[in-house]
This record gives sequence, C-alpha cells and structure tokens, in this order.
Amino acid sequence: GALGGLALGLWRWQQAAMAASGEDGDEEEELRQRFMAPPVSGLRELRRRRRELRSRMELLIMETQAEVCRALAALDPGAAFAVDTWERKEGGGGISCVLQDGEVFEKAGVNVSVVFGLLSEEAARQMRSRGKALKAKDGKLPFCAMGVSSVIHPKNPHVPTMHFNYRYFEIEEADGTKQWWFGGGTDLTPTYLNEEDAVHFHKTLKEACDKHDLKLYPKYKKWCDDYFYIKHRGERRGIGGIFFDDVDSPSKEEVFQFVKSCAKAVVPCYVPIVKKHCHDSFTPEEKQWQQLRRGRYVEFNLVYDRGTKFGLLTPGSRIESILMSLPLTARWEYMHTPPESSKEAEILEVLRNPKDWVH
Amino acid sequence: GALGGLALGLWRWQQAAMAASGEDGDEEEELRQRFMAPPVSGLRELRRRRRELRSRMELLIMETQAEVCRALAALDPGAAFAVDTWERKEGGGGISCVLQDGEVFEKAGVNVSVVFGLLSEEAARQMRSRGKALKAKDGKLPFCAMGVSSVIHPKNPHVPTMHFNYRYFEIEEADGTKQWWFGGGTDLTPTYLNEEDAVHFHKTLKEACDKHDLKLYPKYKKWCDDYFYIKHRGERRGIGGIFFDDVDSPSKEEVFQFVKSCAKAVVPCYVPIVKKHCHDSFTPEEKQWQQLRRGRYVEFNLVYDRGTKFGLLTPGSRIESILMSLPLTARWEYMHTPPESSKEAEILEVLRNPKDWVH
Repeated sequence: GALGGLALGLWRWQQAAMAASGEDGDEEEELRQRFMAPPVSGLRELRRRRRELRSRMELLIMETQAEVCRALAALDPGAAFAVDTWERKEGGGGISCVLQDGEVFEKAGVNVSVVFGLLSEEAARQMRSRGKALKAKDGKLPFCAMGVSSVIHPKNPHVPTMHFNYRYFEIEEADGTKQWWFGGGTDLTPTYLNEEDAVHFHKTLKEACDKHDLKLYPKYKKWCDDYFYIKHRGERRGIGGIFFDDVDSPSKEEVFQFVKSCAKAVVPCYVPIVKKHCHDSFTPEEKQWQQLRRGRYVEFNLVYDRGTKFGLLTPGSRIESILMSLPLTARWEYMHTPPESSKEAEILEVLRNPKDWVH
Repeated sequence: GALGGLALGLWRWQQAAMAASGEDGDEEEELRQRFMAPPVSGLRELRRRRRELRSRMELLIMETQAEVCRALAALDPGAAFAVDTWERKEGGGGISCVLQDGEVFEKAGVNVSVVFGLLSEEAARQMRSRGKALKAKDGKLPFCAMGVSSVIHPKNPHVPTMHFNYRYFEIEEADGTKQWWFGGGTDLTPTYLNEEDAVHFHKTLKEACDKHDLKLYPKYKKWCDDYFYIKHRGERRGIGGIFFDDVDSPSKEEVFQFVKSCAKAVVPCYVPIVKKHCHDSFTPEEKQWQQLRRGRYVEFNLVYDRGTKFGLLTPGSRIESILMSLPLTARWEYMHTPPESSKEAEILEVLRNPKDWVH
C-alpha cells in the first residue's frame, strides 16, 4: 500500500529504537503495519497495561494517525509523509507526520504526543478549561496528557482545510484521586462555500455523536462555533464541526467510546470532499482569496487557540510540532473587502453568522 | 512632487471635513503641504493650544507621517499611498497611509492615531508597562493616547523591513494629577545580514540619542533586543535598533525633544539602505528565505507585541490599522534549517546572539 512504500526510508530509526527496547521481529512487523512509528510508551508496555484507559487511548491516537496519513497519502501519490519522533526531556515524546508541498496538499500534518511528568498548580489550572482547583502534594501534580492533532491545508482553493484533535488528560491529586478528562473536535475551513460538502461534513459528525447521545451534536456544534471565533474580525475561522473540552461524564468508558467514534469519523468526514474537488479548476483570484483566508487561519491560531498558546508558553514543548498547524503560505491585504453577492462574500456571511447544516 | 500627485484624488473628503470645521482656503493649502490629511484635533484647535505638549506631539507625529510617506513614495514612483481617515466612536481617530504591491515596497503602512476618552483602572494598568496603580474617580480615568507607527516591508530580499513607533500618553487621576509618559523606537529586520547597513542604521540612531544623553543609546539598544524576542524560537525579530517605554523623566520637555530627534532620524536611518539595495538582483531561493522570515515577523506581532495584543483586545480599535503591520505574504515550512555557513545561517546567528554595531 501507499504507506509501505513511503515509510521504507524512515523505518531505520525505528529498528534502532526497537533493538534498544528489546522488541523482536514480529513486533516490528506489527508496528510497521499498524502505526507510523513505534508508540511512545512502547508496544510491550501498552500490552502489559492493556486494560488501562491510558493505554487504550494511546493505541487509538496511534491508529488514528496512521489511518489519516494513509488515507491522505493515497490521495497525493507523488508525495510522502516525513515521520519525525521526538522526546521530551521531562517525560514522554511524540511522533510528527508531515507532508509538505504535494500535488494535492500544500501542508498536511498529523501529530501524536504522549507527555507526562509533574505540573505546577498554576499550569494544571490553565490546562483545564473550567479552571477547577486541584490539591497538589508539595505544589506538584503528576500528570499525563496525550492526543492526536492534525491540520490539513490543500492546494486547491475548492478543497477546504480540515483540523481535528482528540486528547486525554490525567492528573493525580495529593490524596491519590485521579482527575481525568477528554477534549477534542473536528472542524472544516473552506475558502468557498459548498453547501453539499458542509452538510456531508456535519452529517457524518452528527452520526458519530448520535450513537452515544442525541444531545451531543447540537451542544458540541455550538461549542465549535463559539470556540473558533476570531473576535477582532467578527468571523469564525471556518464552518465549524464539533468541539468539546474538559468532558468527564457520564463515565471514562463512555466518553472514550464517544471519542473513538469521533476519531473514526475523521476520514469519512473529509476524504470524500477532497476526492470530489481536488481536480477542480481554479483562477488566480480564487487562489488569492484562499491565501487571504489562510492569513485569518494564522490569526486565529496565534492569537486565540488555547492549545497553541499553551504550547508556545510551555518550556520544553516542541515548537515545530505546534506550529505545524500554520499554512505553507498566507497573505494579508489592507482593507480587503469582497464585492457584494460574490462567492467570497457568500462564505464571509456564513463565517459571520453560523448556520445549522443538519437537523 | 510625488505626494502632490498621489494625494489629489484623496483630498476631496478633507475639503468636506474642513468645510464642516470652518477652516478656510489658506489653511487647506497649508494642510495639503504639511500633512497627509487634516490632523484629528483640527489645525485651528492645535494652534489655539500650541503651547500644550499634546498639541506639539500631535503636530510631530503628523509631520513624521508626511515625511516618511514622501520619502518612501519618492523611492517607488509608480505606487501611491492610499490615505484613510477613521473616527473612534469613544473619542478621537486616525489617519492610515498604506502603499501596497508597489515596485519597491510590498506593503508600507504609516499610521497616526489620536484617541481619548475614559479608561478603566485595569486598562490603564495594562497600558503602562510598569503597571503602576492609578487613582480613578468613579473607576474611570480620562486619558489621551497618540502616536505614529509604521512597518515597511520591501519586495527585494536585500532590502530590510523597518518598523518605528513614537507615542505619548496622558492619564488624569482623581485628584487632577496628570500622569504622562512617552514610548517608542525604530528597528530593522533584514532577511540577509549586511554589516555596513547594520552599522549605518544603529549609528544614525545613536547620534540621535547622544544629542540628549550618552546613556540612552546603550540602554534603549538593549531594551530593543530584549523586547523583540520571539521566545519560542529563541530568536530576535531583527537586528534591533532602539526601544523604550513608560519614559517620564527627566522632564516632559526633554523627553519630547528626545522623541523628536528619534522621529527625525527615521528617514536618514532607512532611506539610504533602501536606495542602495532596491535594484539588487536576487534568486527565488532568497525570496523564499524572505518569506520564511516574514512568517517569523507574523509570529512576533501576533504572539508577543504588546501594542498589537492591546489593540486586538480593545473594543472599538481599528483592526485594519493594527494589522497593517503584517506582511503581504508569509510562509511556514516544517523543520526548515538553513545549511551551516550559509548566508541564511549568518543572519540567524545574529538573531540568536545580538551584536553591538556601534561603540
């Protein structure tokens, strides 16, 4: 398959890593088939702790990374994902897969990180959107944070940008109580509005949510519109999707199953839209409008996005993986205003006043 | 001259504005010769209050705007500055001059703003970098803030980007005491290092400072290197210049005279460098490196710059004038690292470890 071919040259370090960790040939073969690189915690360790949610979540984010990279690589046969692994001095590490300057994708990144260590009370409060106080022992809280996150910027202005992120946190309080929560979401940023695509995207997400609770999609759809708001422009970044944070009910197992459904929905949400439009013809003016919208994407990510801001301010975080979300190119024109009733004005209207795409 | 020609079409609104304010034909002629547009406070009012520092500062920022726009327009004869005036509902307004997509300049903006009204104690504290507490009457503080700010992004990668900003604040406390302070600076962001240019730029600034106090240049040069620091990259935005904030000694008059010298140094600092390099030949690779450096410029401005952040968060501020500082185009590549001993590595070295350019 596409992955086998492109990953060949990148596999050597993994062999070295496995030789060091004592993993054998069969495991190597399994890793190669399932993942983009060996999991941060090691396959053997994940098997030993297979009942723990941390291990199941790490396998889910690794599988999601591989699934999405394979699906995208199949759409852009000339290009390849470069795979980088990195370690965090304070504990943990990650795997960044980036495809740059392909035929279909301008820049596509799918990143996994699994980090752990000790947090200050202040940092712990910042990580949790509800800002709940946590009781620390000697001012420090053992924590574990893991997630898969991705931004896909295509070349063709008729193919939208897509972003998703699914993450899990655990913090241990002084008395041994474990606080845990999930966060995540999937959202779409088109340069031009295509109603059929918008409906397909939202409908696929709604079906994933509805399997668990009919209240989830409307709640998380609204949360998405509220979160991806570029306040100084009075515009949303895109046409939304779902977004949630700090979710710790009804139960760890049920939230995990919901997150799993969302992660499995990423490829069916997005890939059909890419296939449909990646050969559409476009004008230089349409490309320019895409570049201006990319500028807005940069504004949101650098000024408002909690994850980016938290990452940039955290010592020891991997900047290249955090800023992977920025487009390859962007543009800012002074006082650019599209003409009334143009296709550019049409998408702006939807970004200013979000719509319901499915009922 | 260049200005007379280009401003003609933009003069009509000004005639209308003056008719409304009762200013006559001679004044109109004077305004046309001296400024890019009529001052926010009106020429007549500025004359009436000619001894007040507020009026003298407003004239200085208006003259600086016109001087810089004229000097730049003369370098890029095919292009023209578009002049926009805007009003702020809560009090005051501004004049934005922008030249976009010229032969020499990709995007050059010179902005004047003069705003006044009432500040909350919290906002007042944020405005002042030392965060000194101010005693308000009924929680509100009458204030006046004015300044000229400019970012010049040239097309040719051998011509550096230049930024300057000179500003003045007044806040009235509950007991009638007026707090006042000045801030400002001029700094250079080259794509490639040219030592001769760096020395010329810093030397011109040092001479402006030295006329007032020999301690100023070393102090404000260091402040500039510290301020324009992109922490998550471990790099400065450029090769510095001078920067100062919250300066309220030795006296209002002396600080004003110092600010005036700095403002007058902008054209001699920068214009010779543009003239020297604007016809240099360059390769597509050099243009690409410029675009990557533009990406860093965006990162600094959106993530760290106090002025930009304050502007984006202030209700009623004019977003287009604030984000005028962003380049027309920028680029982000994952894991880009220039080869050792390349010209790209040479400038990075100086951005990581600032040098003293004059002694």
